[in-house]
Amino acid sequence: MNIKCKKSDLLNSINISLKAIPGKTTMQILSFIAIVAENNKIDLVSNNLELGIETSLEAEVIEPGKICVDAKMFSEIIRKLPSDEITMIVDDRNSDTEEIASMQIKSGRAKFEISAMSTDEFVFLPNIQSDDNIQISQYDLRAIINQTEFSISDNENQKVMTGELFEVTENQLRVISLDGNRISIRRLTLGNQYPSKKVIIPGKTLREISKILSDKVDDNVDIYFSENHIIFKFESTTVLSRLIDGNYYDVDRMLSDDYKVKIKANKAELTETIDRSMLLRRESDKKPIVFNIKDGKIEFNMKTSIGSMDEEMEVEKEGEDLRIGFNPKFMLDALKNIEDEDVDIYFKSAKSPCFIKNDEKTYIYLILPINF
Amino acid sequence: MNIKCKKSDLLNSINISLKAIPGKTTMQILSFIAIVAENNKIDLVSNNLELGIETSLEAEVIEPGKICVDAKMFSEIIRKLPSDEITMIVDDRNSDTEEIASMQIKSGRAKFEISAMSTDEFVFLPNIQSDDNIQISQYDLRAIINQTEFSISDNENQKVMTGELFEVTENQLRVISLDGNRISIRRLTLGNQYPSKKVIIPGKTLREISKILSDKVDDNVDIYFSENHIIFKFESTTVLSRLIDGNYYDVDRMLSDDYKVKIKANKAELTETIDRSMLLRRESDKKPIVFNIKDGKIEFNMKTSIGSMDEEMEVEKEGEDLRIGFNPKFMLDALKNIEDEDVDIYFKSAKSPCFIKNDEKTYIYLILPINF
Repeated sequence: MNIKCKKSDLLNSINISLKAIPGKTTMQILSFIAIVAENNKIDLVSNNLELGIETSLEAEVIEPGKICVDAKMFSEIIRKLPSDEITMIVDDRNSDTEEIASMQIKSGRAKFEISAMSTDEFVFLPNIQSDDNIQISQYDLRAIINQTEFSISDNENQKVMTGELFEVTENQLRVISLDGNRISIRRLTLGNQYPSKKVIIPGKTLREISKILSDKVDDNVDIYFSENHIIFKFESTTVLSRLIDGNYYDVDRMLSDDYKVKIKANKAELTETIDRSMLLRRESDKKPIVFNIKDGKIEFNMKTSIGSMDEEMEVEKEGEDLRIGFNPKFMLDALKNIEDEDVDIYFKSAKSPCFIKNDEKTYIYLILPINF
Repeated sequence: MNIKCKKSDLLNSINISLKAIPGKTTMQILSFIAIVAENNKIDLVSNNLELGIETSLEAEVIEPGKICVDAKMFSEIIRKLPSDEITMIVDDRNSDTEEIASMQIKSGRAKFEISAMSTDEFVFLPNIQSDDNIQISQYDLRAIINQTEFSISDNENQKVMTGELFEVTENQLRVISLDGNRISIRRLTLGNQYPSKKVIIPGKTLREISKILSDKVDDNVDIYFSENHIIFKFESTTVLSRLIDGNYYDVDRMLSDDYKVKIKANKAELTETIDRSMLLRRESDKKPIVFNIKDGKIEFNMKTSIGSMDEEMEVEKEGEDLRIGFNPKFMLDALKNIEDEDVDIYFKSAKSPCFIKNDEKTYIYLILPINF
């Protein structure tokens, strides 16, 4: 292998590849990136067996070849090279016959030689064919992930809760996550009608993919569905992830439009108040913030071993008076992901969940109260 | 106690006070700030027994008083208050008779009540009188600390090495730090002649004080010396530190102007090369970077379990050829703290220390080589 490429292009591709490199692993091969050079391009492949990424960049391929290198080491060295021109050379005689080879990296007056491995052991991405796809803007996909991922459960004993439901019905995409205390739902209108589908995508996949999606509304991503996998294709990158097997909860059964109290509050003020109450909270002392909802105002109170906070704010209120307590963190997570200036919150009783939602129901956040 | 002050002023003073609050302590009182309100100002006092800080701000003192509060909690709450006007109230009847009191903090529509303690147990700064002082710009003091602190030893068994020698002779201030492998020396000309003195200041004190000194050349700091303490006074802040007892090493005995090889190298190029060699270094594998010094150039080589690096750069050279190895980190620490475009490095043999110094000797960095 003998290739020349631009440092900036290579770094960009490495940064994408790193998203599928596990922080720690007992399988050394998972911490490697495969470099495959042919037809005037380089493919970088990383694969942690749940999530795999293939991304390519332009290069001058003087001699094609493939090799694996430690991802973090490779990334650190490329980052510090002195010139934008990089040459990478592997003596292929060597890499064919021995498992452990080495790769030369040259740039300006610097020359590195690092250990490398043949790609024999490397797990490349499975070749999955699917015509079953939807198209969505990268911006929207990134937003919808960020607006729901915080309520994905990390309880591995209930596997389906560690993912998000992606549900397509006609031209609607609905994304749902839940843990034992709350449900987050976002709905988006797609540009086309599609056949119905329901898949559970691992939370880890979604968090990593949201980091490499562009923030431009005009850049699209094609999402392909197969029986056990989902594939995201955008620009020169393909991300492939396993799906989570199982039936997702029937969330619609838990939603309701009935309410006894409704408030309309300024979102920024409410967020700041709840944020301040977090100061008095400690891991060991999970006290609720109490909402004392009266005509025209809410009185807030939080009391912990550290001290107490009292605050009140004006709101528009409809219905009965109510005292209800919440985990302030759950309230904050939802409020921070709403763009509206005012939010509507619906309550039934001190023991029933509240709903933060808009009239169009493009978002619904359900949060269970805490007894106090 | 009943006081009103500006949030921005209070935050500024809190940030200074926090520098004497230990990260962890078994003595709870050390993690408290004392608030002393009288004569239209508030003094904040923090003291970890090695380092103490007293800093004041303007306030409207409606009722004077004093109280202690947990520094981190206090800082977090003040930071998140909604308005720039802050009122702090302690019911003094309460704080006189009971050890544990509470303080009310009001700002805009937020009201906090946090636990507080009487100042009975608090260790205020000793009142030390001294007329023995020097004056220096805050900018210079900060610079001279940053240019030498990296070679302060953290070996508590050799106490004097955990501090820096500050040595005043006529109008010269010389600052020295050393660990077992290197010596850093900086010299500065003062605006006046002063009586000679030699004190050892704890490294921790210097690191904290450098964070609160201003970066303006025109702002001065007065440094007072007493038998066991050093006091820094600037603006509305007084920092008091214990000195380290003992005799510092006779560094002049280790310095020498003899050399067999001298090189003049571009500092930026040399720094980048050595920085790159650090990529191949691991804690478990402390291999040196080898300088192969020849006429007109240095060839660098580093070889570790991870891989190898080769690089060369042009230099002006005087004297014999030499192969010598160094810990790249020690080289980097010194080079990063030199402002000159070119550096002169003097060598005697592969087993003798090298000296990085300028002709005026305002800086001398001595580094021991590593056998390879």
